[in-house]
Amino acid sequence: MPVINVGIVGFGTVGAGTVEVLYENRDIISNKVGCEILIKKIADLDILSDRGIAPKPGVLTKDAMEIINDPEIQIVVELIGGLEKAKDFILMAMERGKHVVTANKALLAEYGEELYHAAQKHRVNLAFEASVGGGIPIIRALRDGLSANRITTIMGILNGTSNYILTEMTQKGLPYKEAVRKAIDLGIAEDPPTLDVDGTDAAHKLAILISMTFGIPVPFESIYREGIDKLTPEDIRFASQFGYCIKVLAIMKNLGDRIEARVHPTMVPLDHIMANVNGAYNAIYLEGDFVGPNLYYGLGAGRKPTGSAVVSDIIYLARQISQGINNIVPPLAHARPQEREIPIQPIDALNSLYYFRFSAIDRPGVLSKISGILGEHGISISSVIQKGREINGSVPIVMLTHEARESGVLQALSQMDRLDVLTDKTVVIRVGEG
Amino acid sequence: MPVINVGIVGFGTVGAGTVEVLYENRDIISNKVGCEILIKKIADLDILSDRGIAPKPGVLTKDAMEIINDPEIQIVVELIGGLEKAKDFILMAMERGKHVVTANKALLAEYGEELYHAAQKHRVNLAFEASVGGGIPIIRALRDGLSANRITTIMGILNGTSNYILTEMTQKGLPYKEAVRKAIDLGIAEDPPTLDVDGTDAAHKLAILISMTFGIPVPFESIYREGIDKLTPEDIRFASQFGYCIKVLAIMKNLGDRIEARVHPTMVPLDHIMANVNGAYNAIYLEGDFVGPNLYYGLGAGRKPTGSAVVSDIIYLARQISQGINNIVPPLAHARPQEREIPIQPIDALNSLYYFRFSAIDRPGVLSKISGILGEHGISISSVIQKGREINGSVPIVMLTHEARESGVLQALSQMDRLDVLTDKTVVIRVGEG
Repeated sequence: MPVINVGIVGFGTVGAGTVEVLYENRDIISNKVGCEILIKKIADLDILSDRGIAPKPGVLTKDAMEIINDPEIQIVVELIGGLEKAKDFILMAMERGKHVVTANKALLAEYGEELYHAAQKHRVNLAFEASVGGGIPIIRALRDGLSANRITTIMGILNGTSNYILTEMTQKGLPYKEAVRKAIDLGIAEDPPTLDVDGTDAAHKLAILISMTFGIPVPFESIYREGIDKLTPEDIRFASQFGYCIKVLAIMKNLGDRIEARVHPTMVPLDHIMANVNGAYNAIYLEGDFVGPNLYYGLGAGRKPTGSAVVSDIIYLARQISQGINNIVPPLAHARPQEREIPIQPIDALNSLYYFRFSAIDRPGVLSKISGILGEHGISISSVIQKGREINGSVPIVMLTHEARESGVLQALSQMDRLDVLTDKTVVIRVGEG
Repeated sequence: MPVINVGIVGFGTVGAGTVEVLYENRDIISNKVGCEILIKKIADLDILSDRGIAPKPGVLTKDAMEIINDPEIQIVVELIGGLEKAKDFILMAMERGKHVVTANKALLAEYGEELYHAAQKHRVNLAFEASVGGGIPIIRALRDGLSANRITTIMGILNGTSNYILTEMTQKGLPYKEAVRKAIDLGIAEDPPTLDVDGTDAAHKLAILISMTFGIPVPFESIYREGIDKLTPEDIRFASQFGYCIKVLAIMKNLGDRIEARVHPTMVPLDHIMANVNGAYNAIYLEGDFVGPNLYYGLGAGRKPTGSAVVSDIIYLARQISQGINNIVPPLAHARPQEREIPIQPIDALNSLYYFRFSAIDRPGVLSKISGILGEHGISISSVIQKGREINGSVPIVMLTHEARESGVLQALSQMDRLDVLTDKTVVIRVGEG
């Protein structure tokens, strides 16, 4: 049986999962590909720690260049994470005619263009299923399964850590800090969990999904992002009284001449299928002009699911290599790449429904002042909850608006900040239409 | 720009959807493939009816052989449905070196083996994304995205018609016949809706998913199937009191040396993600040994979603043809097909939880008689609801069991049928563990 040699750079969580899949499901995989996939080398600075899976003797090395320079290795798997070093390894591997698999979403979001061009230039492939949604084959859905569609909407729960924290806050009423602590203790969050909870990680993944959709890298820094650290159990409870839960959504809306691209806490109607995506699960909800609504759901991280995704890419490449084909579908799935950049609409041009929680002094006329200012900025109210119970000496006035423009909302709120009847900053959460 | 010529046999609902996608999203598609996909001929006995999309002049023909014999046509799309004629067209097209796309699940379930062999023999490809799950790219998930996994479980809601009927019965309390009438009036069900409601259509699709999973056709007739015509709104209500809803699930469980393959109404825990798949939607829930639980959700039928799936296959083949490749992945995704047939376990060997609704005369000692007989057959009860209200002169006794063997259940029930305290046949519904 013919052999395809793989080299893995980085033997951390995902690296160990990748090795485990290739060893444990060797028969299944070779039946599918028609050849043997052999892990020839694994490079990591730490070659001593026990990862629960033992590479064959002689496979481990401290020197990644042993992989890059091995002419027998056809597929290089980059799993070290980080930016510069990972990029260098990938580019060197491509220059030597090797196909590359990576799970590195930050790298793809920030240096994707350079990598895609290098792949095309050297006539090799770059596959990155594991970069978004863990084991969920969402990159393939865009590359292949939904390829006939104009994608109109993407809404992703793309960060399992923040989804876990929000689920704990929702189901158990925990305050943010306690939920974070629990996630760290369980190994679901890093300490500190910055990139997971501030929206950066989800925005990296959204950038990759948008690039696959349109066949062109998007400027990552133009994606608006907002984290979950200001959410409170009170807001989660009020949301549920209005019939919503709160999820961090990574959203793309195709407006024709421009797109929305944003990551922020969003109120999701409780009967929407995304409302039931809880804990460390990820989900990507898509709409295409022909396929209609589609949802993909699964574990968004972890050794085994991410290993599954990395190895699916190895199989994808091995099937091509075994037939002498280099690059049947380019990395961004477009044989003719988009030439025009897709403009991302600034967040203050957004039209959305909004949730506000005002902290007001319990005094007559407050609601009329608030609604007066909102009216001046073209914001009309669809429902209000005002309950007597004081929180820290003020009463919450909670409302949902009809569709309004973000710029108007910002102006109204900054005007209201000067009102002496409000005791605290107003909480604002965007509301999804469902 | 190079051109790839497509011929479509069958201009019904799916045919019209296919033409619509190819015309409307022509730019998107040619950007992806790098060549133009041209509908050269469409054959249908009816070339006069308005389908809401007008093929270019000269494209329509009554004679499918014009497509089969056209040496310029590289991809033949079979959308006439039915068995013998469709099979003949496909085989003739393959003999002439053409790749084939089909949405014909009955044909694949019943004659798959012959078609897969013919494709391999003639070195062409056979693609059938549209045969299962409408627009949901589930065939690709098995072929490609989850290829590294040993698939341990498949649970599909694969028939939108029966799911719509069940949803109406659940949400509006309609009796079965009224819900069917409504589905027929809305065009969601055919009149009569036999293959949709008796489980045959879902079993066809399950057969295809199992074949993709193991790389070998399964004997369709060995798949157990049971329809929804005996379900009542009462059972749906009782199920919800136990914390379940009722769905028709197409189930595969991988037991190692054999598999379960069965289609029947199943009680699904209300907090399981499959419980929220309502109306005409389909969903496929999968578990793989590495990826863990995965869900794919979308519209399971209809002109546009199915057109999306057919065209995704055309794109998949066109990407290969444009690079001079014939068959990068065989139809069942295994370069080395399984040689050993996968035995399907007979339904009476099933171990499952069960729901029973007994119709009993309201008299002391009935419950003890029933539970006595169950006990004799090794069936233990986990919970009982017995409420006073009489239905047709008898009271319902409803119970859930712990895990029991189907053969024991059948024996116990046949013994109970002879009890004079039971006034009607006992309703049995299998319960999913969630």
